[in-house]
Amino acid sequence: MSKLVPPHGGKGLVCCLLEGSALESEKKKAAGLKRIEISSRARGDLIMMGIGGFSPLNGFMNKADWKSVCEKMLLSDGTFWPVPVTLDISAADAKAAKVGEEIALVRNGEVMATMKVEEIYEMTEADKNWECEKVFKGSGPDSQKFWEVAPSDHPGVKMVLAQKEYNIAGPVKVLSEGDFPEKFPGIYKTPAQLRAEMDAKNWGKVAALQLRNPMHRSHEYLAKIAVEVCDGVVIHSLVGSLKPGDIPAEVRMECINTLVEKYFVKEHVIQAGYPLDMRYAGPREALLHATFRQNYGINNLLVGRDHAGVGDFYGLFEAQEIFDVMPRPSSPGKALLCQPMKIDWTFYCFKCDGMASLRTCPHAKEDRVILSGTKLRKMLSEGQEVPDHFGRDEVLAVLRRYYEGLTEKVEVKMQGFAAGKGM
Amino acid sequence: MSKLVPPHGGKGLVCCLLEGSALESEKKKAAGLKRIEISSRARGDLIMMGIGGFSPLNGFMNKADWKSVCEKMLLSDGTFWPVPVTLDISAADAKAAKVGEEIALVRNGEVMATMKVEEIYEMTEADKNWECEKVFKGSGPDSQKFWEVAPSDHPGVKMVLAQKEYNIAGPVKVLSEGDFPEKFPGIYKTPAQLRAEMDAKNWGKVAALQLRNPMHRSHEYLAKIAVEVCDGVVIHSLVGSLKPGDIPAEVRMECINTLVEKYFVKEHVIQAGYPLDMRYAGPREALLHATFRQNYGINNLLVGRDHAGVGDFYGLFEAQEIFDVMPRPSSPGKALLCQPMKIDWTFYCFKCDGMASLRTCPHAKEDRVILSGTKLRKMLSEGQEVPDHFGRDEVLAVLRRYYEGLTEKVEVKMQGFAAGKGM
Repeated sequence: MSKLVPPHGGKGLVCCLLEGSALESEKKKAAGLKRIEISSRARGDLIMMGIGGFSPLNGFMNKADWKSVCEKMLLSDGTFWPVPVTLDISAADAKAAKVGEEIALVRNGEVMATMKVEEIYEMTEADKNWECEKVFKGSGPDSQKFWEVAPSDHPGVKMVLAQKEYNIAGPVKVLSEGDFPEKFPGIYKTPAQLRAEMDAKNWGKVAALQLRNPMHRSHEYLAKIAVEVCDGVVIHSLVGSLKPGDIPAEVRMECINTLVEKYFVKEHVIQAGYPLDMRYAGPREALLHATFRQNYGINNLLVGRDHAGVGDFYGLFEAQEIFDVMPRPSSPGKALLCQPMKIDWTFYCFKCDGMASLRTCPHAKEDRVILSGTKLRKMLSEGQEVPDHFGRDEVLAVLRRYYEGLTEKVEVKMQGFAAGKGM
Repeated sequence: MSKLVPPHGGKGLVCCLLEGSALESEKKKAAGLKRIEISSRARGDLIMMGIGGFSPLNGFMNKADWKSVCEKMLLSDGTFWPVPVTLDISAADAKAAKVGEEIALVRNGEVMATMKVEEIYEMTEADKNWECEKVFKGSGPDSQKFWEVAPSDHPGVKMVLAQKEYNIAGPVKVLSEGDFPEKFPGIYKTPAQLRAEMDAKNWGKVAALQLRNPMHRSHEYLAKIAVEVCDGVVIHSLVGSLKPGDIPAEVRMECINTLVEKYFVKEHVIQAGYPLDMRYAGPREALLHATFRQNYGINNLLVGRDHAGVGDFYGLFEAQEIFDVMPRPSSPGKALLCQPMKIDWTFYCFKCDGMASLRTCPHAKEDRVILSGTKLRKMLSEGQEVPDHFGRDEVLAVLRRYYEGLTEKVEVKMQGFAAGKGM
């Protein structure tokens, strides 16, 4: 019997991906349906609905769910859900579409899914602003002057404001996992696959390390704390789209491979990737990370400093604090069961003679090797030496090769706002 | 409201220590009672019953409880309890004592408690052998030839076999905490005191580091893992009696003080001591460590390699494994709520560039600094240099001073069987 946490929402894994003959006949049908072009984010969301990663969601949210999620982090039936999962369409498409009909959802020419339209609702500027304020605003310095800064400097806000004039809602049938299975073999895993792998290891208490950046010693330290106190850790990388300037998934995978190969005990670590794009939603995104982790069978999410952070919009530990104030439906089926494993700011300390955090190291700033991701990128891209103990040589070598390749083609731009921050 | 785990047994803290006028009048009464001399172990047990550390016990066990505890680790009412807490008396005392009467329990001239006699039962050689086999036998090499080795080389077995011919049972009124409060000011704490201290810090998830030996980097590493994932750690030392050759509590306290002062963040660590003697009961003692920790408000016990180990009687991780097979009464009042926080064999690793365990370090033996406590003692007592990264210099200096003082008086005998092993 599996010792893993059950999927979120109390309905088991809700998988909208069709297979076999059902898939073939749906594909044929889809060819004759009205086509709507979707965003990269929506494509990731669809694949997650396909493989059960977004259980209990089985489609894009209607207005009642969207409103309730923005306002209360609850679906309208009272189930916890931290961020809107909506599909935007143009005014023209909204006019053409009809409630009750089926449509095909297309990305870059590939039919990703069909949807039975249940509701089409307008998203005015005011609605989008309201969503942004509810979902993206935090307590960091830049959130104090949110509307001055956000539209240009917050990639999450930017994305929502750029959405089209309507949302379209309804259950979906997913027809494709995109190029993830072939692009990331052995890394891209469905919740059922990851669960099977963990069941085979007889794991029950599992932590996920969320990664969207190269894995350095701080990440390694977090993962290893988890290995010490759990059955194992899943290094679970986002392999969907990031913003320009972020390091591509392939390079990040190579860093992780190297680190796992040289510095981990294989028995207690699993590498995996999930197909979502970053939403850059800060603390709420941390909750989303925990929510879909539960579907993957993971009951602890490592949350470090500035998890899913965006520039100065969020307090350094706001993504930890939100777990203390989020709604907790009393029915276990409706509540989030994946817990945060909160870790303080970590670094190498010469006096401690090893990795430590602000909770465990009483020494002075001068004793510690602290380096921002932003500064590290600059050092690597300029071929400078990186201070001892900050990274593993083997990983830094991978990054150096990447940056050397880059500089031949294009000068690395240091993006101030989110480059290398967060996880 | 306290976030701490409730005391074991579902009856709150059961404290048998009298205070104020009740204490004075009981003392007067005790002066006229029949006196029975008790062991050092029984004195520690009495003080624990006095301060609530042995909740829900309110006296020494009758035959039914003794038998049920030895056999099933349950009191006869079904409450979890891992080791016998019994009081042995001579045949002459047994003959003189009467069920129903009150007696005074005396240690080194001090009346520690009064007891209302409820039962007197014989402990034949067969009974003692049975108790030893149930309580002390493990899966290590020396347990395979238990009766060949145990009577001479197992201090716990030795103690039980040396007990007198009868046990006497009944509820107690405790009149003294002995010299612990004055001998260990600020360290010796009652469960109520430790709970108040932790409540003031708003702690809920707390781990205890059990210590009966000087604190080295491996212990520090265990404690710091706990600090990373709990509200805080209690470094909880045994300040009762050990066997000859073990390092005295005062020296151990100085080591801990030094370590806490130089290497811990004060906010997340509490130092405390408890008044028990070692029983040298291996895995069962680990369960006892967890049981009374629950009374102290602690819900996690760090259990490392060879916890409460005795020579080669127990498997290195038998004290962790017993938590998986111990009885789990379904009523939460009767079940043990303090969980083990199991940590693998730990060491400094040059390639990891810090502390690690067999779960987190994939490197070779040559990359690791591994030193047995026995070997360390030998090095310190002979004034040899200790390898880098094994201990903290400041702590080793304390131990060196102790050994230098010793050698003037008496040559340090290296005791093979348990010296420096375990926690």
